[in-house]
Order: sequence, then structure tokens, then C-alpha cells
Amino acid sequence: MNSPTNSPIRVTVWGENFHEHSERDSAGMAERYPDGMHGAIAAGLTELLGDGVAVRTATQDQPEHGLTEEVLDQTDVLTWWGHATHGAVDDAVVDRVHRRVLGGMGILILHSGHFSKIFTRLMGTTCSLAWRNSADTELVWTVAPEHPISQGVPHPIVIDEQEMYGEYFDIPEPDELVFLSTFTGGEVFRSGCCWRRGRGKVFYFSPGDQEYPVYHHPDIKRVLANAVGWAAPAPGTDFVVPQVVDMLPPQFEGRLVDGGRQ
Amino acid sequence: MNSPTNSPIRVTVWGENFHEHSERDSAGMAERYPDGMHGAIAAGLTELLGDGVAVRTATQDQPEHGLTEEVLDQTDVLTWWGHATHGAVDDAVVDRVHRRVLGGMGILILHSGHFSKIFTRLMGTTCSLAWRNSADTELVWTVAPEHPISQGVPHPIVIDEQEMYGEYFDIPEPDELVFLSTFTGGEVFRSGCCWRRGRGKVFYFSPGDQEYPVYHHPDIKRVLANAVGWAAPAPGTDFVVPQVVDMLPPQFEGRLVDGGRQ
Amino acid sequence: MNSPTNSPIRVTVWGENFHEHSERDSAGMAERYPDGMHGAIAAGLTELLGDGVAVRTATQDQPEHGLTEEVLDQTDVLTWWGHATHGAVDDAVVDRVHRRVLGGMGILILHSGHFSKIFTRLMGTTCSLAWRNSADTELVWTVAPEHPISQGVPHPIVIDEQEMYGEYFDIPEPDELVFLSTFTGGEVFRSGCCWRRGRGKVFYFSPGDQEYPVYHHPDIKRVLANAVGWAAPAPGTDFVVPQVVDMLPPQFEGRLVDGGRQ
Amino acid sequence: MNSPTNSPIRVTVWGENFHEHSERDSAGMAERYPDGMHGAIAAGLTELLGDGVAVRTATQDQPEHGLTEEVLDQTDVLTWWGHATHGAVDDAVVDRVHRRVLGGMGILILHSGHFSKIFTRLMGTTCSLAWRNSADTELVWTVAPEHPISQGVPHPIVIDEQEMYGEYFDIPEPDELVFLSTFTGGEVFRSGCCWRRGRGKVFYFSPGDQEYPVYHHPDIKRVLANAVGWAAPAPGTDFVVPQVVDMLPPQFEGRLVDGGRQ
Repeated sequence: MNSPTNSPIRVTVWGENFHEHSERDSAGMAERYPDGMHGAIAAGLTELLGDGVAVRTATQDQPEHGLTEEVLDQTDVLTWWGHATHGAVDDAVVDRVHRRVLGGMGILILHSGHFSKIFTRLMGTTCSLAWRNSADTELVWTVAPEHPISQGVPHPIVIDEQEMYGEYFDIPEPDELVFLSTFTGGEVFRSGCCWRRGRGKVFYFSPGDQEYPVYHHPDIKRVLANAVGWAAPAPGTDFVVPQVVDMLPPQFEGRLVDGGRQ
Repeated sequence: MNSPTNSPIRVTVWGENFHEHSERDSAGMAERYPDGMHGAIAAGLTELLGDGVAVRTATQDQPEHGLTEEVLDQTDVLTWWGHATHGAVDDAVVDRVHRRVLGGMGILILHSGHFSKIFTRLMGTTCSLAWRNSADTELVWTVAPEHPISQGVPHPIVIDEQEMYGEYFDIPEPDELVFLSTFTGGEVFRSGCCWRRGRGKVFYFSPGDQEYPVYHHPDIKRVLANAVGWAAPAPGTDFVVPQVVDMLPPQFEGRLVDGGRQ
Repeated sequence: MNSPTNSPIRVTVWGENFHEHSERDSAGMAERYPDGMHGAIAAGLTELLGDGVAVRTATQDQPEHGLTEEVLDQTDVLTWWGHATHGAVDDAVVDRVHRRVLGGMGILILHSGHFSKIFTRLMGTTCSLAWRNSADTELVWTVAPEHPISQGVPHPIVIDEQEMYGEYFDIPEPDELVFLSTFTGGEVFRSGCCWRRGRGKVFYFSPGDQEYPVYHHPDIKRVLANAVGWAAPAPGTDFVVPQVVDMLPPQFEGRLVDGGRQ
Repeated sequence: MNSPTNSPIRVTVWGENFHEHSERDSAGMAERYPDGMHGAIAAGLTELLGDGVAVRTATQDQPEHGLTEEVLDQTDVLTWWGHATHGAVDDAVVDRVHRRVLGGMGILILHSGHFSKIFTRLMGTTCSLAWRNSADTELVWTVAPEHPISQGVPHPIVIDEQEMYGEYFDIPEPDELVFLSTFTGGEVFRSGCCWRRGRGKVFYFSPGDQEYPVYHHPDIKRVLANAVGWAAPAPGTDFVVPQVVDMLPPQFEGRLVDGGRQ
């Protein structure tokens, strides 16, 4: 059975940690996210999932961006928020994360992470979109009511103010589409999307601009907690990346091929 | 090559033809749709597709609802608009249409046709949805820009006034999602959806309430014309419904199964 | 979190229970399935899932085929094996099961159940296929290694003797394709397929002809146990069928629509 | 209508052109493919599609691998066969092809091209698989009988001798699965798969090892010709890669949001 294990899901919350320290809006950031955006996301997961998770954080300014082999080897689900410094992420780290996903690690790509190296590599497309930052109200509607990620949230989730992300969103067609967002301006966005890549699961969730306190919103915290549960690999996953198999001998060797009984 | 044939696509535009004659709003209907809604839809297809199509109409009040074996045998694509009298559609006719779709006929289900017997049978779900008739503006956004059905329409299509259809729309996940609609009220709807059933193709398109002149809108006419082209069966389709095959003998009979050269 | 509940999954194993008592092969059936096919399936689930499930059986010869409102109201996942007497299943019972699935109950359709009334209704297609009963070896290959249903089984599963089911299988494209089977004769079949319908999940699994002891095969038991876990509704599911929502007032009523800050 | 244009589809058949000149089996290659594998593929397309296509070839040993900006600017559909020297393909050329696909060019990836830089970039996975070269018979079964690519071929296509490619094939779930192959050894492979990436269409088709004369097989030629038709961009495609849109002003600016009439 795909039964629950008693071991907690090991989550690493990765943050770019740039806006928190830039001059552009450091006062606002300090007010909204005194522990950083990654700190808020991590706290929300721990609050909702309790003993079901073991959460750590890692940030881009750390050596190897905080994503050493050791850290990834102990990560079941990685969350990724980046925005201003995507280009400065080391390709070797991206390779490492990519391989870990293909081997079974779940990954949650958040908001402006749509343009991260790891997401565009997993998708194979530009992941471009339309946007406008005008404090639109965002409504997040569920189109997969039976999906684990949509459990326990209202229809719609109401986010009073958010940056607008709109279509066309240049992504492969999602394996499962969970949420659609609308904005006061009339735009629409596929805001909650699932894919499988290799043995790993990928969830993109768009709410969460740094200028708004979205990660304190109880329904958003619920979605992220649900998504961690969904993206977690099956118990016993060995995180081996799919590889070429030299297959010998034939499976049917020695078996009869005849017209058989009828 | 799956090349175009010179034969026109044979289209039957089916209309419930109820509102056109009911006392509820016969004056308004006569103004918006002097030739009936089916007449307007048929005229739009002929206008845009010219010699590429041979269009006829059929209505529910005709014998066998106008969908005799003879008519269906000469139909490549059927369009279906119904609303008030779904329950009065003869099950034998629904069976006939269903079999024709499984054999290869394309079908376009329009607006309130979501509750028709043929659509719910093809889908296997309730096809229920949320709605409000408050003359919302509807925006129709393309999320599949390469799809044949979305060619030649703006992003978004603007419909000044329409009935609101919103999620949750209880349908199987579309094989291809082409359009998403938003409404002034903030709601969202998967308004252009494709499925394959048997050998036939199904397209659901939600704009088109009888209280608004939607089928005269040039972009809506374009979508319907595109959808007829998409839903048309491949040249040479024999319209045979998939059936049980008693498969003898084994395909591999007499073939070697060995470890082979390397 | 979409966390596990401590309550066991309530499973009803439904069996046609015809071959067990027909003259055609009652001796063979008694040897292979002394407790009926439903008995073997139920025993396998209990063996593998233990306290995680509460399993009961129901058979076609019982009043209301054993699927009364009371039974269904206490069923989270239903398994369905039928073959010779599909046509004798009461439409009212099929309606009841259908509504329960749309409300959230999982359903596993087994082998010749492909032609059951409930499966063809959920699919909207003929569900026809090719077949040959010549004791082919069947290999069941995993094409979704991360899927909960494929955990813990070899690649491939080897079934020494089975009836051949081959393509073309007239089904809607699966939402998730988990297994592909090959046969000594060279045929292929989409043998493990997932769909969502309404709020419920559907899994079709083809191994399991009555002439072979397939449901005693340890890997097949594992697949069925995994599938019960996958198909089980989320904790707290209320089993309400999706229905029309009369949506008032507009979500955006009173909210500003302006060009906003930038 | 998404109508046919009179302009031919501009096809570039790209070949690695390595085995044709290597010492390993130059005599055999010269016998099977006197004009190179690319020459055989190009000839098959011209034979079947006639005036519907304008076919050219390009090979890896040419400057810029024969895929200059000028060539790509005049290419609607590119076919790609490579095997031994994937690593030597210039990343700048891969970038260029990638952008052209996202802008609307169709691409057919053939056989060992599964490990090409362009395919793994489009997929985001390893694209690894199982294999054995033992002259298995390959049967290619249609699971999408209505699909343009499967028109006019038998069920199954029989290839007397081919290298075996088997699951697990590490690809994203196809948007449309068209063909499944079986082999005498009992293995199975998703041998005909469709995806959309950006505005472009991707088709992977596995038959075609250099050691067998597969590209002279009439049914294989038919599949490739059909696939060119399917992958061709819609008439009027501008090949602009999706990009960020700075969306101002709000679409709903100035529109009423009220409770409306009822």
C-alpha cells in the first residue's frame, strides 16, 4: 500500500533572500517578512504539518546556495522562491537539483520562480507570462476538487492584493490543473499546475509576490502544506535517476508462442 | 499525408428551437435571431468556410428531431444547442448520435448544451456548473495558441454581455484545454475544451446564451468555424464504431524468440 | 496536510459470482477460487492492508446486488468484477453507484468489468477491445514509476498464463497511464489506467480472468492494495455529487477596477 | 477555418551522417542507405507528399550543422536523426532550434534522437530507456485511431527486424499517445508520442535503427509523412517565441461590476 510512513517529510525551503536585503524596499520587506520570505514559508509548513515534516531553509547567498549534496540527499521536497537574481544561480547547483528531482524529490516552484533556471529546465519552454503590479484582488478557483492539493481551501481563495500574472503562460500542458486565478483587471492564470518529471513531482503555484504578505494567508499556507504532502516521494524511494538499461535476455525467451487453446 | 480532401465538410447545425417560439421572450429572440439560433450559427459557418462546408440545420421539433439515420449518415460534424427541453430528446436519437460520434463524427456542444443527454453521456459526469445571468462582460483567453481552434482570434475575445458560467464545471479533465473565460464578477470557466471519444472528437464551447447576440460576434463565428475544421474526421473515415475483436492467431506465431545477436 | 486519517478505508469488493456456480467450469473455479473471486480479492486486500482497511463483499445475486444505499453510504472504495451477466445488473443500482463515484467514492474496475454498465457509463465509450484466450504469458510493465499504484512491484510483473486483452481499447485517454501489458502473441494493452470523474477516482486493471488464478499472484494483490490507497477519497469527503450553483452575487462586487500603482 | 494553404510545408531533414561514413559498418550502410539515412527519409516524404512539401536535407558535418538562421527561417518542420555524436552538436545551434520550435516549428525526433540535446531540452528529463539489439520483430500498434498520424497504416505495423527500445522511457507523459510497440522479446515501448512546447509541436517516433532498412518500410514512410502534416504550424504562424507581456491597463477598466439583472 502507498501507506503513510512514520518518518517526517524532509523539506528544504529555498529563498533567493535578495529583496529582504536590497535597498529597494527593505523596510516593507522587514515588516511583511521579518524572518525572510523563506522564514515565513517554513513557519507555515511547520505550523500546519507539525511532526509530519522536518523543515530547514537554505538561501542563495550561502555557499553552494545552501544546496550542497548533503542537504539535497536529505531533502524529500524542495520549495523554490526566486526573482531578481535567477541568472546568478550556479549551473552546477541547478544540475544537482535537476537530478534530485528526476530521482524522486518533489519540488514546489513559487510565483516568480517561473523564470528560475530549474523550472525552465524542467519544463523545456520559456515559462514567460503576462503581468501587472497594480494590487489586483486575486481569486484562486479550484478546478480539481478531489485533488490532494485543493483540500480544505475555500472556492475561491480571496487574496486582497497581489501582483497580476496572466495568460499566455508558456508551459507544457499540466498533467493536472488544480487552480485557476482571476484578477480584478479581468485576467486569468493557470495558478496551480502539476507535472511529473522522471520520478519526481513538480507543482507550480503563482500567488506570492514579495510586495504583499501572501505567505501569511491561511489558505495559501494550506495549499503549500497540501502540496508538500502531494509532492513527497513514495516511502522507500531510492532517488536513483532513470538511466539507460542494457536489457538482456529477452523476457519471452523460452516461452511458447503458439495459437493456444480456445 | 493526412491531406485535405476536396469534398466539403458536411455539417448539421442542430437547434432546440424552443426559445424562438416560447412566449417568454419571443420578441427579443426574433430581433436577435430572426432565423433562429441554428440559423445564425449555420450562416456564420457558411460565411467563413464557404465551399469548405455543406451546412444544413435540424431542430428538435422535427420528426426524429431532424436527426434521422439518413441525416446522420451524411454528417461529418454536428453542432448542438439545447437548453429548456433536454429531457424531451428521444433516447433512441441520443443513442444514434452517440454511436455516430464513436464512429468518427465530430460534435460541438454549445453553451447550455452542457446538460444535454448526448454531452453527459459522452462525459460520464454531471456536467454541472455555476451560473449567474447578470450581463457580465466575458473575456475568452487562449491558453493553447498553437491549437487550430484558437487561430485568428484576439487574446482575449471580448463579449460585452453574456450569462456567467463558472467553475466548478464537472467534466473529465479535457484532453486539450483551449480557452479560459473570465467574467466581470470575477468568476472563471474552462470555456473551450476538447476530448476524443471513440474515433470522434468533441469540443465544448460555452459562449452563446439565447439572451445575447453572441453568435453574431465575429470572433465567436471564427471559433466555431475553426472547431468544425478541427472536429472533422480524417478523409476516408468509415464511421465504424469500435467493437470487440476476436484476435487469432497470435501476431508472434512462428517468430523466433531468442537472445539474438548483439 | 492531506494527511492520513486513522480510520480504515472502507472497501466493498463486488463480485458477479456467476462462474463460481455455473456448470461451465465449477470444478475449476472451486479449485482456483474456493471463496469466490470476490473472496480472494477481499482476502488479498486484508492481507496486505491490515488495519488500514475494513473489507466487505457483495455479490450480484444478493438483493439490490448487495449494493444498497446503506452499503454504499459506508463504502470509500468499490471494486467491480463482472463478466457474463452485465446486462442483468439493475439500472437503478448502476445509477446509485455512479452517483457515489461522482461524489467521491473510488472504484476499481477489474478485467472483464470493462463491459460493465458502470464502467461504460463513466467512460462514455464502448470500452471494447481485442481478446484471445490462449494462455499467453502476460508481462505488466510500469510506465509511471513514481505513481502510488506502481510501488513495490517488479518491472515487469510476470503472469504465466492469462487471457489476452489487446488494443484497440476504446476508452478516453487515461488521465494517468500506469501499466502496459504485453502478451506472448505480441499484443499490447493499456492495462492500468486512471481517470477522475466528478470527485471520484477510477482505476481500470485488466489482469484477472476467471480461468486463471491471477488474484492469488502476490504482485497483483499488491497492485490492488496500492490502488485502493490511491482511489480512497480525501479524509472528510462528504460524497456530495457536484451540482448546479446559482452564483450570486459577483465575487468582484465592490472591488476597485483601476489602473493601479505601478 | 484552419484551412490548408496552397504553400508547401517546408521540411528540413537533419541527419547526423556519421554511421554512413564510419568504418564500423560503412558497407552495410551503403547498401541500406546509399543516399544516407537523411536521403532516404527525405525521399520518402517527397514520394508521399509530393507538391505538399518542399524538402531539403542538412547534416551535422556541414557548417553550423547545416542549420543556419537562414535555413531555420525557412523551415516549418524539422526531422532529427542522431546517435553517435550528440555531444558534438553545438549548443548555439541547439538554442536556435529550440527557439524556432517554441515559435511554432514542428519537430520530429527519430529513434536514437531520444538522447539528442534538443530533445532532452524540450522534455526536461533524461529520456533514457532500455534497449537490446537482437533483431527483434517490432509491432507498432495504434492507440489513437482518430489521430492524423495514425491514418492509413495497418494495426499493427510489422517491422521484421529492429533494435528493441523498451520501457521505462523517461519522458514527460505525452500530450497524445499514438503508438505502442511490442518486441519478440516481450518488451513494450511508447513509440509514437506527441507534445506541444511553446507554439511548436513535437513528435517522437522510435522505429529507425541504422542497422535495419526501416526508413524504406512503406508504413514507416506513411507515419513520417502524416507526422509532417500534423506538426506543421498553422498557416500564418509568425514564429515569434512566447515572451513576457507587460500588461496594461486592466481589461475590466471602466466596466461595471454589479449584481446585475436576474
